[in-house]
Amino acid sequence: MTSSSTAPTQSSSLLVTGTIGIDTVETPTARAERVLGGSAAYFAAAASRLAPVRLVGVVGDDFPAQHRALLEGLNSVDLRGLETRAGGKTFAWGGKYLLNMNERETLFTELGVVAEAPPKVPAAFADSSLVFLGNTHPAVQTQLLEQIPQRKLAVADTMDLWINVAHDELVHLLSKVDGIVLNDSEAAHLTGVRNAVSAGRRILGYGPKFAVVKKGEHGAVLIHRDGVAVVPAFPAEEDMVVDPTGAGDTFAGGFMAHLARTGRTDFETLQTALSWGTVMASFTIGAFSLDGVKRASAADLEARYKTFARHARV
Amino acid sequence: MTSSSTAPTQSSSLLVTGTIGIDTVETPTARAERVLGGSAAYFAAAASRLAPVRLVGVVGDDFPAQHRALLEGLNSVDLRGLETRAGGKTFAWGGKYLLNMNERETLFTELGVVAEAPPKVPAAFADSSLVFLGNTHPAVQTQLLEQIPQRKLAVADTMDLWINVAHDELVHLLSKVDGIVLNDSEAAHLTGVRNAVSAGRRILGYGPKFAVVKKGEHGAVLIHRDGVAVVPAFPAEEDMVVDPTGAGDTFAGGFMAHLARTGRTDFETLQTALSWGTVMASFTIGAFSLDGVKRASAADLEARYKTFARHARV
Repeated sequence: MTSSSTAPTQSSSLLVTGTIGIDTVETPTARAERVLGGSAAYFAAAASRLAPVRLVGVVGDDFPAQHRALLEGLNSVDLRGLETRAGGKTFAWGGKYLLNMNERETLFTELGVVAEAPPKVPAAFADSSLVFLGNTHPAVQTQLLEQIPQRKLAVADTMDLWINVAHDELVHLLSKVDGIVLNDSEAAHLTGVRNAVSAGRRILGYGPKFAVVKKGEHGAVLIHRDGVAVVPAFPAEEDMVVDPTGAGDTFAGGFMAHLARTGRTDFETLQTALSWGTVMASFTIGAFSLDGVKRASAADLEARYKTFARHARV
Repeated sequence: MTSSSTAPTQSSSLLVTGTIGIDTVETPTARAERVLGGSAAYFAAAASRLAPVRLVGVVGDDFPAQHRALLEGLNSVDLRGLETRAGGKTFAWGGKYLLNMNERETLFTELGVVAEAPPKVPAAFADSSLVFLGNTHPAVQTQLLEQIPQRKLAVADTMDLWINVAHDELVHLLSKVDGIVLNDSEAAHLTGVRNAVSAGRRILGYGPKFAVVKKGEHGAVLIHRDGVAVVPAFPAEEDMVVDPTGAGDTFAGGFMAHLARTGRTDFETLQTALSWGTVMASFTIGAFSLDGVKRASAADLEARYKTFARHARV
């Protein structure tokens, strides 16, 4: 396959693998039924605001036409890696947020095609230089990674489940990637160390150059061989938070896309990338599904970044 | 009483009221027995690194000579407001930190003289322009405040107990002060709003110009009529944390002292003051009692500030 008019060709091409799903979300005041979600969808919606993105994922042939249209409507997202599997069921997730919007219950998870063979990375994407491996079984993440031999920097997301049931595969993955993104509770679980900076430091012992420990409403910490950076979350008021779903994925999207558009992966650039991740997450929580990052104008993004920099000046 | 050679005479003279106590602290790896503590002692030790401080507090005649010598050894702390009450017992507190160093149990509290009549503000301190009212009954805080009629800015600390048993007096105090400093759980308790920014906004409805909501290891948020500022905690590694006692009091000390030395109380100055509070707290947690802030050299303070600014750049 040769490049089409929509295919990005720049050197720091960014690829994301992860879920494309159908989410049903309840909050104390509202409900969204079967809306577009999934880690790769959220990531791509955010990242594509800053740089072109190549998406690798799989849906079933039940994937709603309007959701496909939403993905196709995202500028700068190359969907040649989106596989539609005949007879398969699309990943679906249901969650409910409690009154404080910081705790949630998972109501159901229907893995569908996500439990089957992973999608293939198209040949046209094999030259991607920046790779984000959305959360899935670490052995699958490793397989996906091996299909992108020219990568300059690979970052993986993970979760508690894999720390429990696939610890060795996760440790192996950590020896192959440049960075890992995980929650503070997951970092503590993986290392046995509760302090986020010290937990991150331990994780570097497994091989990656850096770890990003996400603390939700409390921001994030970057622990890197070359330094430590800490960023608060955007100081959102209560009525600004409509639906926190996807905040972590869009944080990762903003983070990686800043690397892609600058073509740099040094510590200083990673530090600034944390702020772009924060900006993207602040839009995501303001609406259901991808709406928050989608409807923000380029001027809105720039203005929010400036507002954040003013709020968080030290 | 006329000014002595040790009495600060600058216009933004800073006064603190609060406890002077004897602390016994257990951590998972160490123990400190009957060391100098108390909110005003911690505050003064930190603040005096940046600006002269006038201390108002009361101890019993059992107050150990070596603790008095420690207070007298603090440069730029004016102790003319330290009352030694005959026959009284000095405030004593015992606490134990759990393995993660972020949760603690109070083992005992012996109020002693703190449960009796509050100390008087000496006439020589009545012209103080910046006032910090350490945590005590809000009616007592109001009484103390009334003795400092020329104040330019007054800030109070409070705690859950007073929200429960002296809610009306606390609301009255809030109508008299310019700022309030409290923990995130206390802000939520006072307002019924969990989101720190929104809770702070509600508190401004009681009268103060600003609220500082402290989040411990997650930093602090300043909610001010003129803006919002958010600051992470210093990204301390696990082995840097020896004893968190006094972190909040030294945070307040660094915060207020930055206002005192600049002679300014505008939003921008308050925002920078958050970082100086953070720097002071980062030294406090590194040792028992006042040792952390006491032994840091002026160069150490400047270097830590620069390190923090580098870590927390957005």
